[in-house]
Amino acid sequence: MEIRRKGNRRYDEIREIKITKNFLKYAKGSCLIEIGETKVICAVNYEDKVPQWLKDTGNGWITAEYSLIPSSTIERIPRSSISSGRTHEIQRMIGRSLRGVVDLKRIGERTFWVDCDVIQADGGTRIAGVIGGFVALVECLNKLKISGLIKVPVLKDYIGAISVGLVHGNILLDLDYSEDSLASIDLNVVMTGGGEYIEIQGTAEGYPFTKKQLEELLNLAEKGIKKVIEIEKEILKDEIMFLLGN
Amino acid sequence: MEIRRKGNRRYDEIREIKITKNFLKYAKGSCLIEIGETKVICAVNYEDKVPQWLKDTGNGWITAEYSLIPSSTIERIPRSSISSGRTHEIQRMIGRSLRGVVDLKRIGERTFWVDCDVIQADGGTRIAGVIGGFVALVECLNKLKISGLIKVPVLKDYIGAISVGLVHGNILLDLDYSEDSLASIDLNVVMTGGGEYIEIQGTAEGYPFTKKQLEELLNLAEKGIKKVIEIEKEILKDEIMFLLGN
Amino acid sequence: MEIRRKGNRRYDEIREIKITKNFLKYAKGSCLIEIGETKVICAVNYEDKVPQWLKDTGNGWITAEYSLIPSSTIERIPRSSISSGRTHEIQRMIGRSLRGVVDLKRIGERTFWVDCDVIQADGGTRIAGVIGGFVALVECLNKLKISGLIKVPVLKDYIGAISVGLVHGNILLDLDYSEDSLASIDLNVVMTGGGEYIEIQGTAEGYPFTKKQLEELLNLAEKGIKKVIEIEKEILKDEIMFLLGN
Amino acid sequence: MEIRRKGNRRYDEIREIKITKNFLKYAKGSCLIEIGETKVICAVNYEDKVPQWLKDTGNGWITAEYSLIPSSTIERIPRSSISSGRTHEIQRMIGRSLRGVVDLKRIGERTFWVDCDVIQADGGTRIAGVIGGFVALVECLNKLKISGLIKVPVLKDYIGAISVGLVHGNILLDLDYSEDSLASIDLNVVMTGGGEYIEIQGTAEGYPFTKKQLEELLNLAEKGIKKVIEIEKEILKDEIMFLLGN
Amino acid sequence: MEIRRKGNRRYDEIREIKITKNFLKYAKGSCLIEIGETKVICAVNYEDKVPQWLKDTGNGWITAEYSLIPSSTIERIPRSSISSGRTHEIQRMIGRSLRGVVDLKRIGERTFWVDCDVIQADGGTRIAGVIGGFVALVECLNKLKISGLIKVPVLKDYIGAISVGLVHGNILLDLDYSEDSLASIDLNVVMTGGGEYIEIQGTAEGYPFTKKQLEELLNLAEKGIKKVIEIEKEILKDEIMFLLGN
Amino acid sequence: MEIRRKGNRRYDEIREIKITKNFLKYAKGSCLIEIGETKVICAVNYEDKVPQWLKDTGNGWITAEYSLIPSSTIERIPRSSISSGRTHEIQRMIGRSLRGVVDLKRIGERTFWVDCDVIQADGGTRIAGVIGGFVALVECLNKLKISGLIKVPVLKDYIGAISVGLVHGNILLDLDYSEDSLASIDLNVVMTGGGEYIEIQGTAEGYPFTKKQLEELLNLAEKGIKKVIEIEKEILKDEIMFLLGN
Repeated sequence: MEIRRKGNRRYDEIREIKITKNFLKYAKGSCLIEIGETKVICAVNYEDKVPQWLKDTGNGWITAEYSLIPSSTIERIPRSSISSGRTHEIQRMIGRSLRGVVDLKRIGERTFWVDCDVIQADGGTRIAGVIGGFVALVECLNKLKISGLIKVPVLKDYIGAISVGLVHGNILLDLDYSEDSLASIDLNVVMTGGGEYIEIQGTAEGYPFTKKQLEELLNLAEKGIKKVIEIEKEILKDEIMFLLGN
Repeated sequence: MEIRRKGNRRYDEIREIKITKNFLKYAKGSCLIEIGETKVICAVNYEDKVPQWLKDTGNGWITAEYSLIPSSTIERIPRSSISSGRTHEIQRMIGRSLRGVVDLKRIGERTFWVDCDVIQADGGTRIAGVIGGFVALVECLNKLKISGLIKVPVLKDYIGAISVGLVHGNILLDLDYSEDSLASIDLNVVMTGGGEYIEIQGTAEGYPFTKKQLEELLNLAEKGIKKVIEIEKEILKDEIMFLLGN
Repeated sequence: MEIRRKGNRRYDEIREIKITKNFLKYAKGSCLIEIGETKVICAVNYEDKVPQWLKDTGNGWITAEYSLIPSSTIERIPRSSISSGRTHEIQRMIGRSLRGVVDLKRIGERTFWVDCDVIQADGGTRIAGVIGGFVALVECLNKLKISGLIKVPVLKDYIGAISVGLVHGNILLDLDYSEDSLASIDLNVVMTGGGEYIEIQGTAEGYPFTKKQLEELLNLAEKGIKKVIEIEKEILKDEIMFLLGN
Repeated sequence: MEIRRKGNRRYDEIREIKITKNFLKYAKGSCLIEIGETKVICAVNYEDKVPQWLKDTGNGWITAEYSLIPSSTIERIPRSSISSGRTHEIQRMIGRSLRGVVDLKRIGERTFWVDCDVIQADGGTRIAGVIGGFVALVECLNKLKISGLIKVPVLKDYIGAISVGLVHGNILLDLDYSEDSLASIDLNVVMTGGGEYIEIQGTAEGYPFTKKQLEELLNLAEKGIKKVIEIEKEILKDEIMFLLGN
Repeated sequence: MEIRRKGNRRYDEIREIKITKNFLKYAKGSCLIEIGETKVICAVNYEDKVPQWLKDTGNGWITAEYSLIPSSTIERIPRSSISSGRTHEIQRMIGRSLRGVVDLKRIGERTFWVDCDVIQADGGTRIAGVIGGFVALVECLNKLKISGLIKVPVLKDYIGAISVGLVHGNILLDLDYSEDSLASIDLNVVMTGGGEYIEIQGTAEGYPFTKKQLEELLNLAEKGIKKVIEIEKEILKDEIMFLLGN
Repeated sequence: MEIRRKGNRRYDEIREIKITKNFLKYAKGSCLIEIGETKVICAVNYEDKVPQWLKDTGNGWITAEYSLIPSSTIERIPRSSISSGRTHEIQRMIGRSLRGVVDLKRIGERTFWVDCDVIQADGGTRIAGVIGGFVALVECLNKLKISGLIKVPVLKDYIGAISVGLVHGNILLDLDYSEDSLASIDLNVVMTGGGEYIEIQGTAEGYPFTKKQLEELLNLAEKGIKKVIEIEKEILKDEIMFLLGN
């Protein structure tokens, strides 16, 4: 069965990504990221201390928090249910991913808080969190560089993320909510600009997947991530050069 | 001492109010309200049941919830501190205000949830919650009317709100955050389109205020609320007529 | 429709107020305040430290907590429901009011805890909290003065509070629970001995109120507060003189 | 070393017990019990349902809750610390004790809530909870009898309670707080009017006790409990006869 | 009515006790204790600090925590219900008991955490907690002695515990779950090796007990505890000598 | 740098797996699974109702809970910290995996609770949860089959799981805690008996990994999982045949 995607998207096409940098007045770095109808506010702030177990090591830390506003989803979520297991899983994934491209030894004994607040959830919110979180983090690190608080390159690479899935036997890139609901596999992939993996999270819902399908899905994800990173390069070109050591 | 306001606002001038209706994809009614740099997403959803103490009375209920995203304020608020006493006080005030202009006997045995999620807090967020909450509620009620679920007018009047305060002896309309920090009095007023009071909340921080000052502040508030209601009238003209019984 | 009040109270008459000073053995200041059948234990304790944001400013802080025992109300309140939004709203109001007549710069880097525990709730508990909290605070401050820990006057004025309301079109002073249940407006007013406002909280339940009604209600409240302050003067005459700088 | 007790109490003398029946306006049964300077408000309410595991058995249930107001103790207890392990231990003990003298099969499918709120804690609060809880429960059951909801005797016996302890080698009856702090053994005993045990809770703090000491302590407790039950008999003589089947 | 016990146990016979010392890899002291089908993992760890109120006194502290895994009981317990009043009561009892035989002045400013995690609950879990907690504590203290951190004897005596009860009028030693469910009295006794009491907790469920019954139960408990201590002596003979000062 | 593994394990060798079936007295299915020094108790219970969103669909549900006892880890975990983001992530992974091989339409409107309680954590606890959870689930389902409550095959396949990682550039199968601490990649893989994927979770800690490394790791995981499934086949041979439809 062939899949007809909204807006006539091809199976290997990502939704339009729109990033509004410098979205918030107070955060040290921030953006609004829109992937199709998914909208997430990403904001980065830092404080000059680190968790107990990092004290006096000279290393910094990056941690992410993820939340939804109650009216972001099809059925309103009561505030008491927002912080669920799913929330914890997602915010841990975003934090790990961002730490994967930052040289924690070089950012000073600081903790960076990456807040991902979902305004509208139409699939791919964790992906939006990684990408938007990266953009906001770069903005924040760049400010630290400008004010002389960071004096050496601290980024190892770009980071990109995308979801792929299998719907009625078809592989699809960048699933929206309606596709995600039907998917028998949901695979989230995070890669560096250099094409290496940072995180792979794949789950079969009901139907296990073969090695061949995994291979196809990984290839499709790579294609999508390349596109994502092109967008990041365009949008961050003024802030990121020094941070990458270029 | 005279007060120089940002953007050369006069003492009796409100900030620009921008309301984006139909802001969210899933909520039954929603808007983004911007009052100067304050930004609040207001969303209304309902369910076909009422709190225990209203069961089988035929009456409906309206309740509001208010929250901030962590990066909405000058200093990031940890998520664990967001739900504070202040939060409870504000959401109770928004809920009471909206109930004040709705005929609860006519909206059916339904609970309406009004979610006010603050994206950026630059003073007047509770005011934004009342105005934006009203706009989103009208949008939602209008949909119920269109689908035939509401057959009679259910609104008693428009509702407007504004803050006034005393800064270095000057009365000021619609305080932003920097003014609010300096204010010795902070008075929030909610009125109907007909010029009657729904809610008055005034607090002296350190310096009590005289009857004369109260009178001046109330007059100034009335002036601001009239302006607010004009804006609402313009923006809601297509949806609100039937609901008001006009 | 005329209102027949319990005990043949006139519309502008407050209930009998009975204050038992020095009610508790351990608290630094305490009283039992009875307003009609409303009974609240108010207790003040202090510690020699202040909240983080006041550290090293030389200023002190006053904070109030309000709670009910489960059997204080018509329907028993489960302990898990006692700390509600209403509770937060009330304790914030009591704290703000008391801070309004104390010179925080002169009380030393101390935090004063004002505990208002409601034993019986027959309307006006927050009013009782302000009045009883003031009496207990004066008792505590006086002990500090006697032991030489406070050497200058620290009080700016007396503080009084009362509720007024509109029941079936009649303005009423000091509503008891049965009147409060019927009131279309409930207005709580806090004033200084000098006749200036510290706090005004007015809410229309269902029927908005006019400017004229507001004026009448404020006048009635002022009358009640004068009476309250007379009672305080009588009861505190031995302890308060030095603290007020008289 | 001989112990000099406050008010020249003999080692085998209980403090004065003062019980104000019908202390609260709303509770179905209530009293203020004062044992020396210990003051506890006991209140009983009921609802016409039982815990899940008793449904449709025809049996009723009695459960107790115990709490302190923050200013009841020498050092103010923060509200967040009030519900501790100690609290749970005490309220379970009070509930079990009261169930021990009530015929749960005869009180109908009702849950009785016994609230013990400590106003002032000077030793023996759990003892006060048992005695005051019993008085309030009798008052409540008597009202049920009067209104015809209870038609048969439901009480098996009186219940009395007291603490005994060992201070510097001396056995003491009914310890106040200062004695309790010094006690190497603290034994709480609950007995029926007929002289049988309902509950024994004895703990050595640092120094274990011998069989002989246990025997002496139990005898002393019995003496105290007899006195307690005399007081109850006097105070309950009008309400309790029918309930006991006399 | 005579009681037929599982495995033909006599009324005065304890179940088989099996203790696997050094059960866990990481804890400083640990054992698995099996009393019949009851299985509890006891583990002791310590840290070099004490609760606030013991700071700079030179004294140490011992505290116990008790929990069940959800599948340890007949009906699975939801995780959210595990930490109940009963849990608090039990862990306080275990902590007090162990403190009763340790010289807190001699263990240094350390807090010892005794974790009792119930794997299978077939009656007597608190008893198992005391015995197993003692074995694990001795193991831990012995390691401290070996590494020179404890240089003097710190134990005052052995500690033993057992439950006794009255089932259909028969006194029984060491009740299993099925017997406990039927018992009209449940008495837990903790004694030292020297035959003195540390803790007595007796509760009548529905039927009060006489002095004579109490005496019989206490004698039976003593018999059981002697047996328990023999088992401890055998199992701890290599580690405990120095700690006891022998 | 070559890795010297404990017990001279080869890089592609799993630790010894020991499964004690029927480990608990009360659970409907249970086992103790030991993978090297990692020990997890897995227990399955069910109830005859499903979550709200599955009601009246005829489908059943499987959900997992994962917890550690405080003394299971190198540093004791305070009970208040046990339920963390990591816990949620793991229990969601176990639940999803087990649902992947069960035909939820055929198990009736029942919820199966799979409790994984970690007694000792030496790496691979989530893997142990999947394997042990599967064994306990089969035991439980087999009992349902025996009692006639399940009449058709409900299992789609075996399920196996293993972790692989990269330590100092070497790929390693089945990491223990000390290896896991050094690993730059940690990949958990869940597969069916038929060699298809159910779940892949791979995370780079600091160093991203190449496609080639991913391929090698996936092959190594497959090898390990085959071994795991052989062990399951041996252990479950009597119970699983009917459930698989063989």
